[in-house]
Amino acid sequence: MPAMADETLFQLLHTQVVAAAYGAGRGSGDEGLRAGLTVLEGMGFRVGQGLAERLPQGALAFREELDTIKFLCRDLWGAVFGKQTDNLRTNHQGTYILQDNNFPFLTQMAWGQQYLEEAPKFLAFTCGLLRGTLSSLGIESSVTASVTSLPA
Amino acid sequence: MPAMADETLFQLLHTQVVAAAYGAGRGSGDEGLRAGLTVLEGMGFRVGQGLAERLPQGALAFREELDTIKFLCRDLWGAVFGKQTDNLRTNHQGTYILQDNNFPFLTQMAWGQQYLEEAPKFLAFTCGLLRGTLSSLGIESSVTASVTSLPA
Repeated sequence: MPAMADETLFQLLHTQVVAAAYGAGRGSGDEGLRAGLTVLEGMGFRVGQGLAERLPQGALAFREELDTIKFLCRDLWGAVFGKQTDNLRTNHQGTYILQDNNFPFLTQMAWGQQYLEEAPKFLAFTCGLLRGTLSSLGIESSVTASVTSLPA
Repeated sequence: MPAMADETLFQLLHTQVVAAAYGAGRGSGDEGLRAGLTVLEGMGFRVGQGLAERLPQGALAFREELDTIKFLCRDLWGAVFGKQTDNLRTNHQGTYILQDNNFPFLTQMAWGQQYLEEAPKFLAFTCGLLRGTLSSLGIESSVTASVTSLPA
């Protein structure tokens, strides 16, 4: 049943989670938007912690911070989205930029103005996921997301 | 990265979804419990619809209702939980009982009295998932869950 892959299942559930965070009168206005983002980020954080706790012990023994980030780009992205990130940049001073040109949670969305307004809702969980995974790997971080261009 | 399988990812997210449905002052008391179950069942329903919409067209052409139910036991359960149900019974009058002796969403839980009280929260999403999938396959149904014994 290739069309019912787990990846699809996770994405479908994520879509419902975003909808629930902004449903039933919640999430209207700027304050509501922020409240929803906080909820989604927190859920991502705890899922990230859970994933990290299930890693083989050997995977946790990264020597360099950059190795940990590469692990996120390759293995975490692979487990969650079935692919790797397209690019990783760093200023070698603790700032890392992970680029995904076809981020699955965004490519599902419709095009246009609403897209730009809605995009943060579909990024918050993944920001939390990265932050939670890093936290369990011993790295306190701040993770933000930005959309610089619309997916093809 | 076998320990970070998609199945785990889905289960971790489901756990967070249940927690969110009962967090932040919601879900206290009988009325709150029912409200949370309705939310979870609705999310499951829409995920089930989404899965069914992604099925190959051939899979939708079941002749007999029983074939559709077998599809749920084998393929849907496989996609969601990585295994099949343990047993399927029917009275041949439209009632089907799917039995899973180690339902993944329950085996994660702690044992004891709290388990029995919490169990419905961890069954509602899957009830909705079955109902939503069946709905998209053209079968209107009522899906309920019961725990007859604690998983080993």
